[in-house]
Amino acid sequence: MATTPKILSTLPNVFTSLHEAKIKSKLTFAQLGEAIGRNEWYTTAIFYGQARPDKSDVEKLSAALGLQQGFLEEAFGEDFFPLRGLGEFPPQDPVLYRLYEVIVVYGYPLKHMINEKFGDGIMSAIDFEGDVEKVKGSQGEDRVKITLNGKFLPYRRW
Amino acid sequence: MATTPKILSTLPNVFTSLHEAKIKSKLTFAQLGEAIGRNEWYTTAIFYGQARPDKSDVEKLSAALGLQQGFLEEAFGEDFFPLRGLGEFPPQDPVLYRLYEVIVVYGYPLKHMINEKFGDGIMSAIDFEGDVEKVKGSQGEDRVKITLNGKFLPYRRW
Amino acid sequence: MATTPKILSTLPNVFTSLHEAKIKSKLTFAQLGEAIGRNEWYTTAIFYGQARPDKSDVEKLSAALGLQQGFLEEAFGEDFFPLRGLGEFPPQDPVLYRLYEVIVVYGYPLKHMINEKFGDGIMSAIDFEGDVEKVKGSQGEDRVKITLNGKFLPYRRW
Amino acid sequence: MATTPKILSTLPNVFTSLHEAKIKSKLTFAQLGEAIGRNEWYTTAIFYGQARPDKSDVEKLSAALGLQQGFLEEAFGEDFFPLRGLGEFPPQDPVLYRLYEVIVVYGYPLKHMINEKFGDGIMSAIDFEGDVEKVKGSQGEDRVKITLNGKFLPYRRW
Amino acid sequence: MATTPKILSTLPNVFTSLHEAKIKSKLTFAQLGEAIGRNEWYTTAIFYGQARPDKSDVEKLSAALGLQQGFLEEAFGEDFFPLRGLGEFPPQDPVLYRLYEVIVVYGYPLKHMINEKFGDGIMSAIDFEGDVEKVKGSQGEDRVKITLNGKFLPYRRW
Amino acid sequence: MATTPKILSTLPNVFTSLHEAKIKSKLTFAQLGEAIGRNEWYTTAIFYGQARPDKSDVEKLSAALGLQQGFLEEAFGEDFFPLRGLGEFPPQDPVLYRLYEVIVVYGYPLKHMINEKFGDGIMSAIDFEGDVEKVKGSQGEDRVKITLNGKFLPYRRW
Amino acid sequence: MATTPKILSTLPNVFTSLHEAKIKSKLTFAQLGEAIGRNEWYTTAIFYGQARPDKSDVEKLSAALGLQQGFLEEAFGEDFFPLRGLGEFPPQDPVLYRLYEVIVVYGYPLKHMINEKFGDGIMSAIDFEGDVEKVKGSQGEDRVKITLNGKFLPYRRW
Amino acid sequence: MATTPKILSTLPNVFTSLHEAKIKSKLTFAQLGEAIGRNEWYTTAIFYGQARPDKSDVEKLSAALGLQQGFLEEAFGEDFFPLRGLGEFPPQDPVLYRLYEVIVVYGYPLKHMINEKFGDGIMSAIDFEGDVEKVKGSQGEDRVKITLNGKFLPYRRW
Amino acid sequence: MATTPKILSTLPNVFTSLHEAKIKSKLTFAQLGEAIGRNEWYTTAIFYGQARPDKSDVEKLSAALGLQQGFLEEAFGEDFFPLRGLGEFPPQDPVLYRLYEVIVVYGYPLKHMINEKFGDGIMSAIDFEGDVEKVKGSQGEDRVKITLNGKFLPYRRW
Amino acid sequence: MATTPKILSTLPNVFTSLHEAKIKSKLTFAQLGEAIGRNEWYTTAIFYGQARPDKSDVEKLSAALGLQQGFLEEAFGEDFFPLRGLGEFPPQDPVLYRLYEVIVVYGYPLKHMINEKFGDGIMSAIDFEGDVEKVKGSQGEDRVKITLNGKFLPYRRW
Repeated sequence: MATTPKILSTLPNVFTSLHEAKIKSKLTFAQLGEAIGRNEWYTTAIFYGQARPDKSDVEKLSAALGLQQGFLEEAFGEDFFPLRGLGEFPPQDPVLYRLYEVIVVYGYPLKHMINEKFGDGIMSAIDFEGDVEKVKGSQGEDRVKITLNGKFLPYRRW
Repeated sequence: MATTPKILSTLPNVFTSLHEAKIKSKLTFAQLGEAIGRNEWYTTAIFYGQARPDKSDVEKLSAALGLQQGFLEEAFGEDFFPLRGLGEFPPQDPVLYRLYEVIVVYGYPLKHMINEKFGDGIMSAIDFEGDVEKVKGSQGEDRVKITLNGKFLPYRRW
Repeated sequence: MATTPKILSTLPNVFTSLHEAKIKSKLTFAQLGEAIGRNEWYTTAIFYGQARPDKSDVEKLSAALGLQQGFLEEAFGEDFFPLRGLGEFPPQDPVLYRLYEVIVVYGYPLKHMINEKFGDGIMSAIDFEGDVEKVKGSQGEDRVKITLNGKFLPYRRW
Repeated sequence: MATTPKILSTLPNVFTSLHEAKIKSKLTFAQLGEAIGRNEWYTTAIFYGQARPDKSDVEKLSAALGLQQGFLEEAFGEDFFPLRGLGEFPPQDPVLYRLYEVIVVYGYPLKHMINEKFGDGIMSAIDFEGDVEKVKGSQGEDRVKITLNGKFLPYRRW
Repeated sequence: MATTPKILSTLPNVFTSLHEAKIKSKLTFAQLGEAIGRNEWYTTAIFYGQARPDKSDVEKLSAALGLQQGFLEEAFGEDFFPLRGLGEFPPQDPVLYRLYEVIVVYGYPLKHMINEKFGDGIMSAIDFEGDVEKVKGSQGEDRVKITLNGKFLPYRRW
Repeated sequence: MATTPKILSTLPNVFTSLHEAKIKSKLTFAQLGEAIGRNEWYTTAIFYGQARPDKSDVEKLSAALGLQQGFLEEAFGEDFFPLRGLGEFPPQDPVLYRLYEVIVVYGYPLKHMINEKFGDGIMSAIDFEGDVEKVKGSQGEDRVKITLNGKFLPYRRW
Repeated sequence: MATTPKILSTLPNVFTSLHEAKIKSKLTFAQLGEAIGRNEWYTTAIFYGQARPDKSDVEKLSAALGLQQGFLEEAFGEDFFPLRGLGEFPPQDPVLYRLYEVIVVYGYPLKHMINEKFGDGIMSAIDFEGDVEKVKGSQGEDRVKITLNGKFLPYRRW
Repeated sequence: MATTPKILSTLPNVFTSLHEAKIKSKLTFAQLGEAIGRNEWYTTAIFYGQARPDKSDVEKLSAALGLQQGFLEEAFGEDFFPLRGLGEFPPQDPVLYRLYEVIVVYGYPLKHMINEKFGDGIMSAIDFEGDVEKVKGSQGEDRVKITLNGKFLPYRRW
Repeated sequence: MATTPKILSTLPNVFTSLHEAKIKSKLTFAQLGEAIGRNEWYTTAIFYGQARPDKSDVEKLSAALGLQQGFLEEAFGEDFFPLRGLGEFPPQDPVLYRLYEVIVVYGYPLKHMINEKFGDGIMSAIDFEGDVEKVKGSQGEDRVKITLNGKFLPYRRW
Repeated sequence: MATTPKILSTLPNVFTSLHEAKIKSKLTFAQLGEAIGRNEWYTTAIFYGQARPDKSDVEKLSAALGLQQGFLEEAFGEDFFPLRGLGEFPPQDPVLYRLYEVIVVYGYPLKHMINEKFGDGIMSAIDFEGDVEKVKGSQGEDRVKITLNGKFLPYRRW
């Protein structure tokens, strides 16, 4: 189906099936997130093999999408650990590139602010959560608001 | 001075002078931002040649840092237009890498959410603002909260 | 069919079908563009998965190409969002390379002119339209005239 | 001077001097182009070492910028032939990247249109001219209009 | 068949068929070139999808190779435009590498001689023809003599 | 001097001096070649550090350019062995790129013709000579004719 | 001094001074580590700008190396935050390459073991410590024993 | 099966079968290591084609996994020699990247310590063994402890 | 069969068949070399498509491996010319990497010695032969002795 | 001095001084090797910073080259450990490239022969020695004979 994102061909087939089931269900990621009690971003990440749902997430997801029992359970069993990272970098798609551009342009200023505010350390990308919101700007325009929220991890002295 | 970030050597000398003046002033980027009436991130971006302050920003910055009149005015004159982008990618520094990793891991899910919420288009990296905050997590831990806020730009049909 | 461009093998099958239908129809992109009320360039971009036709475009395209009802409608449904970007860079094909060469040679001069005329900002590649025309030069020679037309987006100060 | 574009450091010193003289003269590229009887784009290309002015261009440019006689004449003598191409690709600067993105996204459609309209051949990047204009869009917005105009060169059969 | 060059797997199947037919026919490229009234190099380029034979070339080639009528005609129809460029660079195969090495070692001297003899411009790779000959050296040794012959294209001033 | 090719900055200073002496002498490479009894291409290669003149070449070159005795003799002494190869690949300069493009497009056909005519082996880039000529085409146009002439080296079976 | 590692030229001068002082002092990293109460590895990392010593470390290091008071204090002031990462990858030096090879060969098995033992998460490179020891093998041979010890960071579900 | 690591698709099918048998057996690598009398890391490396089990290892592994006799014996016969190295570098998966980051950040310090302790030479990655342990940190936190243990190989003087 | 080297999948199928026949025959490359009257290295190169056996080699190889008449004859017919070069560089496999490392570390010294001993020229990789031997070192250890033997080709002056 | 190899500019100055002293002394590497009792290759490697001479080597080298006492002693002191690896890969210089080509073409056959003769393991590039000889071929031609001789290191099972 042309509507299935091309990048899925680099992932196991179960992810294509997941997307097809979602398209058929006409549910959004936000609705699916509610159905399984997880954040929208996290839920979307499951659909791209970038997060590891627990057993209960999988059951609720199966129910929400009307999938046959056992189908997701087998794919996301105890032995499933995501191999994270998708596509090539720098990305060619303009949506992805703009996110990348923010880091290319503002990476060093961000490092400096983090160091100045927190000391020597990093923002974790593991103990991490995020959000995508649709907000209105001062001119009434639609704006994409993305929040990254990661634990500060100070460098250990030893 | 060892405390001047190494990346500055790839920029004109005025940026090294700016950083040295800031170190001497003992002001933080947040304090400098307040002094010139700009956001902290934006102010930091000026220090790395990634933003273009207007005339009034430059005057206030000179004042706040106790710089000789005319010094910044000349460097950030009408003819100054930043050549944006710093360093090589993928970055080796762990602070920068974690930001990059967020895009590598969550880029496709973010694209999908943006498309689902907004339609066919992108988050602008030009009509863009951002914030870095120090917040507390539910375990009392320090967390880095980064907000990206860009105008949604729909693809034009023509 | 050898006449189907090789790059299509990196796109979903529907795009190969589209090209085959066009070849059979003996219609040019300009004629197809007229048939659907879109610019020739934009119409061609649809055939390479680089633009997202709306519902009415799809219906008219199906009609113009004599495609079975529902075939394109399913492929270009609500869930279809192009993953833009095709092929590897720098390109080896001489037609593509000459376009690339224009940027390699004249990129910095273009940036300087845009900044001088408009201030700090960019030409949008999203709120963008373009044209390809066949014109005559002063020696009577055929010339390719390509017009890029993008909204100027000023950098936001915040 | 910070206002001199960073990329000039990869070119012979005469180009930095040219830019400094232009800044001092407060003339735009369009005005300089008029002064020497050349297109604005072409004039800008001279300032970046991407075009080769003839003797008369050099004399008029010297006059317009109030440069000492002989200074440019020596630099752009008979032995000067530009080594064209500037910077690294893909570019990180957003202005340059948007131009590059147009090729990444629309390159194959452009090739197809050129082939369909002209047959087997290319648009020359040598017998080439271009223009940058500031135009108004239908919403009254500023738009960057870039025109590429190159001779069509058919592949020779032999 | 092991004797079919490996690179053909990156081209449409018709090119493999062409090579197989040639092997069966025991004709050389030089003989095939004579049969269709084209240069040997040009004829070989057709076999690698790097040139676009016209209708008459295709008919004569079909005849010379004893191919079924319509087979080549369909593949090299009006809609066929080569996507030129083959393999990865730098090449690993020693025959290809030596050609590449000539450019790596003598590229700048060649540019200087062309500029000195012709002025500012290039040798066209489009209005181009070439030859490969087997000649004897002064020691009686076999030598490969390759001739490149391209129109000189002066840079346009505008 | 701006007229000295930029690439020379990657070579020892003697090569810049050589070019400056040539510019002052107003001799062409062809004339210098005659003066030292070497081919024009070979003579040019000496100026770019890509060939190793013998003692007699050096003496004649010193004389032709009016250089102080001993200057070249020391630089091109017995201990001088060129480190061949100049610049980065793929090249950005259009003159260099067209030469490169010939290999990118016609490399495999050339390999096939060489193998068919000579058997398993290569054209040497060491026991090699070449020529650049200015010739007239059938339309009276200037054409660049480059001849590559290398010994055929058959693969040894052992 | 030839004995100063070449990579230091990419770091601020203070690091060269540090190494020169160490060479003069004839102290090993292990001895210096003891002197400042830090692990040998950590101490070495300070010498390469890969760790951020605190105020007390700096004072003790100055004392141990007999450095002038204030010299290190200024370089490692509050404003110093390491830009981590050194050299190019893959590394050419065989000592560095062997470490890299261990990851190239055993990376996936290590990921699998970590996932199997700990669940979905990573070994932190921030809350990290390490050791290098000289041990004897069963044949009496010297062996390098390197211990990596990082906090396990489980992926957060949100 | 989604639970089979994606990287296995680049290895012969026998490795996928091995992983499937392991999943079905519910044995851990540590348990399998015990069953065949090998270290856990070494055992895992066999599953990824990065180590070469001997005949007795293969027999015990077949038994532990309940595999049909002869199945592994054929795959790991006398002619099997691993082609070592997996995936692309730098790795995108965060578990792999953190291991890589340790080398990027601490590579030069490690080289210096090894040279200082052992003299001029390397840690072998061939006469090598390693271990992964789950240990408790001083705060009670889980920590990943990885030990690399390679023979020191002094450079030979000759 | 897992024992067939993975790299063969990038070559025509006949090479996999060759390896399978060799495994079945239990003959070593040295024995096969003797059977066909060729050096062991050369014989191995045939198995990897890196050398071109003549008609008699092919007949003897068929006999030695008990292959059906005509099978190899067709694959290695007159039209077969190896496309040389295998795998990606730098190589990840440690056996291949060590060979590569010898060039990375000792390349410039080797160039200097060759130039000093022979003058300006190269060691041919075409008129080339080599050997691999198992020898004993002074400590009784096994050593790999690889001999490269190529004709010296002096640069031609012309 | 032009005769000093260009690559030396990437090494500490002492190596340039060494080469200049050698040129002045008119001694060959072979003669210098004899003078210090080391192999010619090893001696050359010292001149390129790729080997670490011991104290006695350094003294003898100083004597042979007539260098001031202490000059080399300081540079090659106890703290000197070579950072091995020179230049970029793949190399452009034809002498270096031919060595590289041997690995590109014959790497896999060499791996197979080594594995077949020795089992699972590698040829060490550390416990390694080599030789370059000038020999005569069967046609009386000069041939370069390079011998690589490294200890076989079997993979350890653990």
